[in-house]
Amino acid sequence: MTPTSFAAIRDLIARMPAVDEAARSRAAEREDQLTKPPDALGRLEALTGWLAGWQGRHPPRLERVLSLVFAGNHGVAARGVSAFPAEVTVQMVANFEAGGAAINQLSAFAGAELAVHALELARPTADFTQAPAMAEEECLAAFRTGFEAVPVDCDLIALGEMGIANTTVAAAIAAGLFGGRALDWTGPGTGLDADGIAHKAAVIEAGLARHGDALGDPLEVLRRLGGREIAALAGAILAARMHRVPVLLDGYVVGAAAAVLQALDDSALAHCQAAHRSAEPAHRAMLERLRLAPLLDLGMRLGEASGAALAIPIVRAALAAHLGMATFAEAGVATADDGEPS
Amino acid sequence: MTPTSFAAIRDLIARMPAVDEAARSRAAEREDQLTKPPDALGRLEALTGWLAGWQGRHPPRLERVLSLVFAGNHGVAARGVSAFPAEVTVQMVANFEAGGAAINQLSAFAGAELAVHALELARPTADFTQAPAMAEEECLAAFRTGFEAVPVDCDLIALGEMGIANTTVAAAIAAGLFGGRALDWTGPGTGLDADGIAHKAAVIEAGLARHGDALGDPLEVLRRLGGREIAALAGAILAARMHRVPVLLDGYVVGAAAAVLQALDDSALAHCQAAHRSAEPAHRAMLERLRLAPLLDLGMRLGEASGAALAIPIVRAALAAHLGMATFAEAGVATADDGEPS
Repeated sequence: MTPTSFAAIRDLIARMPAVDEAARSRAAEREDQLTKPPDALGRLEALTGWLAGWQGRHPPRLERVLSLVFAGNHGVAARGVSAFPAEVTVQMVANFEAGGAAINQLSAFAGAELAVHALELARPTADFTQAPAMAEEECLAAFRTGFEAVPVDCDLIALGEMGIANTTVAAAIAAGLFGGRALDWTGPGTGLDADGIAHKAAVIEAGLARHGDALGDPLEVLRRLGGREIAALAGAILAARMHRVPVLLDGYVVGAAAAVLQALDDSALAHCQAAHRSAEPAHRAMLERLRLAPLLDLGMRLGEASGAALAIPIVRAALAAHLGMATFAEAGVATADDGEPS
Repeated sequence: MTPTSFAAIRDLIARMPAVDEAARSRAAEREDQLTKPPDALGRLEALTGWLAGWQGRHPPRLERVLSLVFAGNHGVAARGVSAFPAEVTVQMVANFEAGGAAINQLSAFAGAELAVHALELARPTADFTQAPAMAEEECLAAFRTGFEAVPVDCDLIALGEMGIANTTVAAAIAAGLFGGRALDWTGPGTGLDADGIAHKAAVIEAGLARHGDALGDPLEVLRRLGGREIAALAGAILAARMHRVPVLLDGYVVGAAAAVLQALDDSALAHCQAAHRSAEPAHRAMLERLRLAPLLDLGMRLGEASGAALAIPIVRAALAAHLGMATFAEAGVATADDGEPS
């Protein structure tokens, strides 16, 4: 099923499965019988319906949960748009492999496997102020890597990324898809000051100016302004949809990848939850455009799927309540409709 | 140390321990060395400092974590202020004991013990529109139960409650302490409609009118408008402070108990985090008065410590990252200050 051309990606998107309304309804019916006022568990109840509906079964399960991290390097990093040197991408991938990063601890805590895919780190994409970031074949290869990284038998994935300068890339994609000034989509990333942010926005503006005529096609936005890890994330989100795997999206960079798919089909993110709102300021506007309400809002801005992995225990807790709670009938508890004790 | 009079409560509050700044600083110093941009884990970093500072040690630990739920019955329930009949309090306590409630599942998922204290459920407090809810001895007995329910060797407690009509009681306390109209503090609770809310507010207004002259003293607010589970919660919050146990506060009713202590001493809640913002509308204003920013905001309004227990995994994840991550030096990762790779 892995798409081998931009046309094949579009064909796949046209065939995306819809939610299983019957499974989602069975979850909602059970929620209404559990010993609590209706809807009193708020979004936890919506999460069990989301799991059931996208997995296409009730009860849903969370046996195999996976944190999936893609790493890429960016030509635009040479323009001084990050507080950290570009070498940190490969160093952090080594840290992931050695078990020393935040995502290692958060995945282990969440009972999730961690898989890291480094995408040609020794060969950064082109500087998008000078040329398209990727040739079509490069972009497709990265997309396919992401697509194939999603196991068919997975119950939930948490998606994240690593790539010095990739909030610059994400901001360029956001501006390319959503419009607005580069500065509206530009933030401190790993820690720029106000001058750094102004410079970063100018670099993004230069990229938008160079590629402006071609930005009507979301896949061209991805190819010209994106990066390998972002193409891979888009591939993984689409693969998850095809395999009926619910997705937790991490922050701003993952959101940019998701936005490419949404621009291709407005329903493309229906199987996704925004795990958190990042401290990157433009993530708020991005989530509004994506029509996703974040589960967490804890001022995090690390990437690596850290926010997505932190939301896994919330989803697991929702399912634990759903599966383990007694019904009103089982517990002999009166309901709101009862004038008298049951 | 358990206080045996209102005067003894005031004496204890005057002797509350402060945060251990040295332990908190050691946590912050370690956070700054971990392989992430400074502050990139947002509130997770603040949580490790909070744990260390209040436990008075670095590293902090989360070995014994406890969900503590207090249940009470309220004379004012007879005024028809709840969508559920008063019998549900004792039925839900039985459900807690049988393991069928949300808090059972959420505590088990969070690796927390659950202790439920039912406070004379067969003997509701007096209807506060007619008389003080409790005599001083009754209020003190409940406060002492809560105080003694906090184990000295506990590493974190999640506090919650059960009591049909107790959002009415909490709203009365909030209005008594903070001022404003009863309606400003009144919400649907377990599911009132607009007429029900208006009636509930009128009942609260009647209580405020009856006791108005005595509401300058926060302990009198607790005694006259409160309930046993709320007095117990106040006792537990104070005991946790004396024993250096960090506290996760659940929703609106727990917030009312916390507000009594804050009114007695503005620093009384420094060892507490607001675990979540409840869907009960006035919880937003209450948290603002308490100067507590919620960790979660998931539209929950169940009580039972459900929101507090759901935040336990967030705190555990913060500690897992803090303890398990590599430092920049250990991982050989360049920092933002490095012009060259390390």
